[in-house]
Amino acid sequence: MNSTIRCAVLGGSGYTALELLKILPRHPHAEVVAITSRTEAGQAISRVHPSLLNRCDVVCMPFDADALAAAGVQVAFGCLPHGASIAAVEPLLARDIRVIDLSADYRLRDPAQYHRWYDHPHTDSANLAHAVYGLPELNREQIRNARLVANPGCYPQTAILGLAPLLANKLIDAASIIIDSKSGVSGAGRTPKLGTHYPECNENFSAYGIGKHRHTPEIEQLLSQIAGGPIHVLFTPHLVPMDRGIFSTIYANLNASATEAELLALYRSHYGREPFVRVRDTLPGTKDTAHTNYLDLCIKVVGQRAVILACEDNLVRGASGVAVQNFNIMHGFAETAGLV
Amino acid sequence: MNSTIRCAVLGGSGYTALELLKILPRHPHAEVVAITSRTEAGQAISRVHPSLLNRCDVVCMPFDADALAAAGVQVAFGCLPHGASIAAVEPLLARDIRVIDLSADYRLRDPAQYHRWYDHPHTDSANLAHAVYGLPELNREQIRNARLVANPGCYPQTAILGLAPLLANKLIDAASIIIDSKSGVSGAGRTPKLGTHYPECNENFSAYGIGKHRHTPEIEQLLSQIAGGPIHVLFTPHLVPMDRGIFSTIYANLNASATEAELLALYRSHYGREPFVRVRDTLPGTKDTAHTNYLDLCIKVVGQRAVILACEDNLVRGASGVAVQNFNIMHGFAETAGLV
Amino acid sequence: MNSTIRCAVLGGSGYTALELLKILPRHPHAEVVAITSRTEAGQAISRVHPSLLNRCDVVCMPFDADALAAAGVQVAFGCLPHGASIAAVEPLLARDIRVIDLSADYRLRDPAQYHRWYDHPHTDSANLAHAVYGLPELNREQIRNARLVANPGCYPQTAILGLAPLLANKLIDAASIIIDSKSGVSGAGRTPKLGTHYPECNENFSAYGIGKHRHTPEIEQLLSQIAGGPIHVLFTPHLVPMDRGIFSTIYANLNASATEAELLALYRSHYGREPFVRVRDTLPGTKDTAHTNYLDLCIKVVGQRAVILACEDNLVRGASGVAVQNFNIMHGFAETAGLV
Amino acid sequence: MNSTIRCAVLGGSGYTALELLKILPRHPHAEVVAITSRTEAGQAISRVHPSLLNRCDVVCMPFDADALAAAGVQVAFGCLPHGASIAAVEPLLARDIRVIDLSADYRLRDPAQYHRWYDHPHTDSANLAHAVYGLPELNREQIRNARLVANPGCYPQTAILGLAPLLANKLIDAASIIIDSKSGVSGAGRTPKLGTHYPECNENFSAYGIGKHRHTPEIEQLLSQIAGGPIHVLFTPHLVPMDRGIFSTIYANLNASATEAELLALYRSHYGREPFVRVRDTLPGTKDTAHTNYLDLCIKVVGQRAVILACEDNLVRGASGVAVQNFNIMHGFAETAGLV
Repeated sequence: MNSTIRCAVLGGSGYTALELLKILPRHPHAEVVAITSRTEAGQAISRVHPSLLNRCDVVCMPFDADALAAAGVQVAFGCLPHGASIAAVEPLLARDIRVIDLSADYRLRDPAQYHRWYDHPHTDSANLAHAVYGLPELNREQIRNARLVANPGCYPQTAILGLAPLLANKLIDAASIIIDSKSGVSGAGRTPKLGTHYPECNENFSAYGIGKHRHTPEIEQLLSQIAGGPIHVLFTPHLVPMDRGIFSTIYANLNASATEAELLALYRSHYGREPFVRVRDTLPGTKDTAHTNYLDLCIKVVGQRAVILACEDNLVRGASGVAVQNFNIMHGFAETAGLV
Repeated sequence: MNSTIRCAVLGGSGYTALELLKILPRHPHAEVVAITSRTEAGQAISRVHPSLLNRCDVVCMPFDADALAAAGVQVAFGCLPHGASIAAVEPLLARDIRVIDLSADYRLRDPAQYHRWYDHPHTDSANLAHAVYGLPELNREQIRNARLVANPGCYPQTAILGLAPLLANKLIDAASIIIDSKSGVSGAGRTPKLGTHYPECNENFSAYGIGKHRHTPEIEQLLSQIAGGPIHVLFTPHLVPMDRGIFSTIYANLNASATEAELLALYRSHYGREPFVRVRDTLPGTKDTAHTNYLDLCIKVVGQRAVILACEDNLVRGASGVAVQNFNIMHGFAETAGLV
Repeated sequence: MNSTIRCAVLGGSGYTALELLKILPRHPHAEVVAITSRTEAGQAISRVHPSLLNRCDVVCMPFDADALAAAGVQVAFGCLPHGASIAAVEPLLARDIRVIDLSADYRLRDPAQYHRWYDHPHTDSANLAHAVYGLPELNREQIRNARLVANPGCYPQTAILGLAPLLANKLIDAASIIIDSKSGVSGAGRTPKLGTHYPECNENFSAYGIGKHRHTPEIEQLLSQIAGGPIHVLFTPHLVPMDRGIFSTIYANLNASATEAELLALYRSHYGREPFVRVRDTLPGTKDTAHTNYLDLCIKVVGQRAVILACEDNLVRGASGVAVQNFNIMHGFAETAGLV
Repeated sequence: MNSTIRCAVLGGSGYTALELLKILPRHPHAEVVAITSRTEAGQAISRVHPSLLNRCDVVCMPFDADALAAAGVQVAFGCLPHGASIAAVEPLLARDIRVIDLSADYRLRDPAQYHRWYDHPHTDSANLAHAVYGLPELNREQIRNARLVANPGCYPQTAILGLAPLLANKLIDAASIIIDSKSGVSGAGRTPKLGTHYPECNENFSAYGIGKHRHTPEIEQLLSQIAGGPIHVLFTPHLVPMDRGIFSTIYANLNASATEAELLALYRSHYGREPFVRVRDTLPGTKDTAHTNYLDLCIKVVGQRAVILACEDNLVRGASGVAVQNFNIMHGFAETAGLV
């Protein structure tokens, strides 16, 4: 076990990179030695994100796998947009640099699914074949030795961890699942658009991508794996006028009557040893999880339905925090290192 | 038809009163001649709500039915809390003052239901018997001659108008209805509490009252009436960090396949002549309806499910605006008077 | 006096146009017969701004002075960006269409000043010469017959009306004036930029343009006119995470001791007959003026300094509301028509 | 040097306590062994603040100096309200427990000043006499051995550090200082009040306490000390609709001409070795400092005036972060321990 791992962050200008660059400098075993950015090359990252001043002043460079290898980079965190990530992941793996990819490029097992939902073919099925879906609560063992971790999506984590105990125990009708999710605006990224222009989305609650959001196949793939059979869900994302936070209200019909106390006990037992899942008997709010790697869960029973409430910080638990958790698992560090 | 109606507002310190006092001064046929308030008696209402300065400077008085009658009040808008409203409604009706009650006190037809959900018995079943539920799109004719209008709840309007075309045409499985609603903070009233303290609810999205909210029986009563049989729904309210606006995402299983175009046409036909329902082919946001009396509807089909999106301004359409719409209907004024 | 004036709105896609299109449809003497937009030509304006659905569904057209004249347009409200406005104003005036220009193009009397602050020469000094600065409290009489009204800037109105009573009465040291202003984000317009991207400016208070903002010469021109001699001010704008509202805290050294009561009386006397200036003895907040045409003023004395607090809604009083007030003055309508 | 210090937090229910309880568990040399709360005694602190779940689950106890001593508490962080703090500080010091008091009770050197501004006499002049004002940049050496640290106020830090380089070098007219400050709502504490009720202060920018705020004498005391003579300032606080952050725009007349570059160099030299002051050449925003212990400074020159922009997180740098910085200094730990 190497006590300090040399890290690169790819795509430094976005919000998941920013969040990583807040976490990694306080990590006892990580050193950020390189940051790449197409648009900001030559700029100190703290000029791009002034909040990083004095905390991380690394100068951005264009992406260059050889240069990263020469700099002794051992792990790269990919914060590139979907599609662009593949072009960086391939050459890094070829140079024995492990990759934690925060994009969606290696999440869907089936390249055809990827093609259908992301509108272009997948061009790296070789690496896709060995990529590990980086949800620690599900795949901790495979993550340990993974060369390529596909860091999970923000929405999917709430849905998957929210439903796993019920599905694994066959307590719900899999055809009845509805996931009504709400996200803060940082989930839409850092590129200015009309829909995320302050006076448009402030004081506004709206729906988008009803039935069409790209996280749908990711959720379905994982839930199907847990349930041991194909599952289709109705997933409806909404935009909330706040910076960060995802809240999912998940509905499913119970196969048999169950009390809240029983289901709460089931969830507590299921997640009892997890450092970053908090099963609660009170209704959660996103603020309880803000700036942390915790995912909070609560389960209610109303009539014959289970209502699961799941929330997290979309930038930490939903992206950069769980990436560091994966980093810790991959290197045998305490799983909470840098994260509490 | 009297060209100017002398109005009183009961309970001037809250937000629905404030909203009424912004609408009524611009109404061509309304004059606010009295405002009552237990806590603010003797104060100009514009001291209580500085935004009303120069727009409405009426001095608050304690509630006194004789004094209101002596002042020639013809209509009283009740903005009192649930429970307190009954004590004011009775004596006003006895003095031939018509009442538009914005509280929940006269909404539930069955006093036993009221007792169960509001934790105290209903003490005015005589007036309850002739109260008209003031949803213009449903009860326009009865409202016309009503002496007592029970102004509808904010959440219920989105649910009822969102589902009416489907239920009336028996297109959905009534047992499958889930109403996932989100409200701005003004819906919680003007009394400071920890949960609505700015640093607690800002940048926070949370659930509350899952399966227990008092608007549930109101929604069920009206949907049952439309469907012609008992309906139970799952209603889950959430709190959004914004001032105003309600957004309901409503789920129901379709009895038979239907296209979005067919359902959109159905909705357009159902609400075609309604001045304050806007059926849209684009996903709505609460801001589209802010500070207006419009309720926006959009319907999507995903697999075998209908997803209805309904939004409104909770203080205008959800309370004071629809109260003025009822006022207009009761007096034969243009239904949009004062509201556009 | 023509009972209904045919109006055009130029540049329909921005926020001041949107605000005008909320006000004008409820105005008893205005009809919006044309809306121009380079980018949205062919679209109903209610597709651009869904909040206008059913309220204003006029289809946008490209700017064409002849077409506007042929449509019988009598008054055009210019909501074009600075610089672009001149090209529209000239041909309209040539066709006897009166113009209320909400841009800065005709505010500065001196073309050289315009050139210096707006980085290009002024190309219409002929019309500049007869343009009237549209601040009703200052120039009501000239506005009445103006063919071209230069609608005042949002920040300047708070500074000018906040200082006018003191300057007109020579009570302060003109060299000591500091105007510390704070604006909601809608003041930056509707074009998405990084600085107004929600996750950048939400939960953020920042300064911009210290000592360099283009409203500085406008403020100085008007204050100099009031004082009867050249005045230079220090103007520091800031960005507040809210949609709308401007708050200016204005500092000036008193020439002689004065009590708050005396100054309050002076302000009340100065603005006593103004329908849209509210002199208050309580500290104001922008929300008191939100969605109204009121400008609220309060004056405090601390030691030898006067501190004037001035606030308004930047889109209504700061732009479109005062434009309608000017429209009313120009046509002899009640000054408050459409505005209360 | 003891490697782990046993800490108590007094008054656990407020926001400064919450912030401390986020920082201390990640501090390498601190252990929270007791939390007191009058209202929450018997409750786990993570029931009071759900964000602390699994991070700090200490059960609150009533304040009892003997019990704290018996528990081996070495340092107490006082998060009690002004006035209540004295009653806790005295018995703790008597039991040799060092105190970092976040209230204002020991900040003003002169008990008469305290009496005048806080409306009750100071009852512990003995300890007041040896209390050290805990601003590390000014008093690092005295803090080292202090038994009682009066942690500095949130607003004062921006004013003092913003002006210190200019005052220490006699570059400004001390009579000309104006401090226009803006604070997020958490600065008002956790007790619900109408002014901090969400729908009242959201989308609202307002002024309060103009010329009367209790931080005025604290600012003046420290500035006078730096300048070597009595200084009076005009301090005007405002409330910003955001959770956290203070931004101060500070004005002063320069005694002689100076360029921005010269003053920037002066500030950089003055604060060059400070770990938590960032002198910047770009205009700062509060978000750059959110959730950190940094105080950002920028200086502009406009005519003969200096405009200093200073911002910080009011709960971290403005309270609990600087308290931990003081804790580090008092125990010889790295000054940044637990804070980066």
